[in-house]
Amino acid sequence: MNPQTTPAPELTVERSGSVTTPKGFRAIGLAAGIKDSGHADLALVVNDGPLQDAAAVFTSNRIFAAPVQWSRDATADGVLKAVVLNSGGANACTGKDGLTDSAMTAARVATGLDCGVVDVAVCSTGLIGMRLPMEELLAGVDLAVEQLSPQGGPDAAAAIMTTDTVRKMASWTSPQGWSVGGIAKGAGMLAPALATMLVVLTTDADVKPLALDKALREATRVSFDRVDSDGCQSTNDSVILLSSGASGQAPLPDEFTAALTAVCTDLAMQLLADAEGSAHDISITVRHAATEADALEVARSIARNNLFKCAVFGNDPNWGRVLAAAGTTGAAFEPERLDVWFNGVCVYRQGAIGEDRSRVDLSGRAVEVVVDLNHGEHQATVWTNDLTYDYIKENAEYSS
Amino acid sequence: MNPQTTPAPELTVERSGSVTTPKGFRAIGLAAGIKDSGHADLALVVNDGPLQDAAAVFTSNRIFAAPVQWSRDATADGVLKAVVLNSGGANACTGKDGLTDSAMTAARVATGLDCGVVDVAVCSTGLIGMRLPMEELLAGVDLAVEQLSPQGGPDAAAAIMTTDTVRKMASWTSPQGWSVGGIAKGAGMLAPALATMLVVLTTDADVKPLALDKALREATRVSFDRVDSDGCQSTNDSVILLSSGASGQAPLPDEFTAALTAVCTDLAMQLLADAEGSAHDISITVRHAATEADALEVARSIARNNLFKCAVFGNDPNWGRVLAAAGTTGAAFEPERLDVWFNGVCVYRQGAIGEDRSRVDLSGRAVEVVVDLNHGEHQATVWTNDLTYDYIKENAEYSS
Repeated sequence: MNPQTTPAPELTVERSGSVTTPKGFRAIGLAAGIKDSGHADLALVVNDGPLQDAAAVFTSNRIFAAPVQWSRDATADGVLKAVVLNSGGANACTGKDGLTDSAMTAARVATGLDCGVVDVAVCSTGLIGMRLPMEELLAGVDLAVEQLSPQGGPDAAAAIMTTDTVRKMASWTSPQGWSVGGIAKGAGMLAPALATMLVVLTTDADVKPLALDKALREATRVSFDRVDSDGCQSTNDSVILLSSGASGQAPLPDEFTAALTAVCTDLAMQLLADAEGSAHDISITVRHAATEADALEVARSIARNNLFKCAVFGNDPNWGRVLAAAGTTGAAFEPERLDVWFNGVCVYRQGAIGEDRSRVDLSGRAVEVVVDLNHGEHQATVWTNDLTYDYIKENAEYSS
Repeated sequence: MNPQTTPAPELTVERSGSVTTPKGFRAIGLAAGIKDSGHADLALVVNDGPLQDAAAVFTSNRIFAAPVQWSRDATADGVLKAVVLNSGGANACTGKDGLTDSAMTAARVATGLDCGVVDVAVCSTGLIGMRLPMEELLAGVDLAVEQLSPQGGPDAAAAIMTTDTVRKMASWTSPQGWSVGGIAKGAGMLAPALATMLVVLTTDADVKPLALDKALREATRVSFDRVDSDGCQSTNDSVILLSSGASGQAPLPDEFTAALTAVCTDLAMQLLADAEGSAHDISITVRHAATEADALEVARSIARNNLFKCAVFGNDPNWGRVLAAAGTTGAAFEPERLDVWFNGVCVYRQGAIGEDRSRVDLSGRAVEVVVDLNHGEHQATVWTNDLTYDYIKENAEYSS
């Protein structure tokens, strides 16, 4: 038996779509000169309405960046007109001056769009502990406002990349005509994630702020929150959802949550596939747990185990390291009833050595680990990457 | 101000001494043929009395190896005559057969020494999930019993090595003539540690089992338990302390605990210095915490942060990653009151950028990170290593 664990959303997501797929949105990405490289580094996403409802989730790290502080306050009333994002600098651990910089950025956008300053969210990503070059950034904002386009989503996706090697976009359109779109950046350091996962989601469905918030929390809980690339949690992570209502349609909450979850899950898989220096995408599913929290605790413990991650890099189905990681948790299970599967081969069964590990083929990029606790009815999946020479190269040589 | 944080035990430990430094002990290490390499792989440490008091601490991993199960039971009455240890196989996740193997090993030692089978502790280290070659092992036990020597400690230390590059030994002798000695193995994967930290300690002081147990728990709590090489916890970790009382002296509990702590700390530093593939030994001290538990939580969170560990490998005093790790904890502190020091340079002070990071020299092996929470009177130090290409090489290519 080969357990089915890969996420199989019923909804087919398009990777050519983005934040400008839903009606009522314009966007732009350009090079403002924040990055020394001259690459695009400033993005703007604008909601032209008729509604300007919004919801957002941010890093739970207590050390959070100035733009997170700004945007958390700006989103509190459930209304946003725009999101301005920059790469090339995280504006984190920059004290009071950093918060002033975020406010000035929002103010410049507000001036350009003729909206309230607290209707503009700000996101930043890049090196921690450095001030942003505000002159370049503010001039870039003026240019961005001028160049906004209903086809600008892909350029916005490109402008928020740091160590990403590809831009991340996704959308889903309902048969009724309303849609959900998104862009994301983050190459490793997800957890929710250091050096920043930034996501902007848009919809033209008519969904009120409270329902938006509920749907966003449910969608991120089972998508971005379960990508645990390296267990490190960022100071800047932000996921912001804007609703224009421009389709004139109001889907049922479950319909909307399913669409949002599908787009978020697809973006999360794109982040995973582009994680810094990784050679394998690993899904870890814990089945038959007493509770979903137990399943999640065991899955995360395995996902964060460096020895396990090194073994996968070495194409070694090392179930001993899987068990040792499970054994450090408080989840309900009896060690002698555990099963462990690697890519469909049951290498450990009911507390004893199972099929020969040589039968497992880990040469492909996808690795599927299943741990069956045989103790209940709940399950959870966490996604991670292996630990590789390139991960170390990237993180020893690139400051964040 | 350069905060003093390196452990400064008042007692000077000798690294030429070992488990046979205290009177009343014999030991031996030899090649029994368990390892394919032909290197030494079997050790025996015997307490010739007059007392045979003992205490032990074992891995807290719920997935524990057969020898841990055996030895935990054998030590429960506070009496041990001998400890037999093998490298070349962990005898973990081997089910009922594995426990039988441990019992048979103890029984063969008991026959040779003419003692009770439950007065023999068993320790194993090496690959998880493989049965031990019992024929070779038992023949080796017979040889070991014959070759026991009052100078055999160093050979025993060599026989328990796996990926260790050097054997680890230490002793301290009091002016009054009683002493404490020890041997250890474990090259990385400490946490307390995967792929096994094994430690045997001996003393000829007259210390009763309950006092032995108390002293051992206190000594390990601030030494081995605070070496967190890679956050992974072994199925086999064992620290066993034997007391012969042969010096005829009964030190005060505090005196004895201090000596034991000094020997344990020195052995822990030897493990750290030999951790797999490491390029830096890192001490992380968290000061002015509300409680010792808070200090420890923050220190461990930093010690387990892969991005921080990669940065140190790259000689980068990346205080942003230190802060981000601290921010994921529940410890009491105000982010804007934190200070961070790298090797005596205050790179982050009172929530803002401090001295220039270029002033920090991380080219040496020792890296001292101090985080001042400015929130209380407690402190704790955790030791770890950097994350390097060689760590990955060793753990992707060597199964455990």
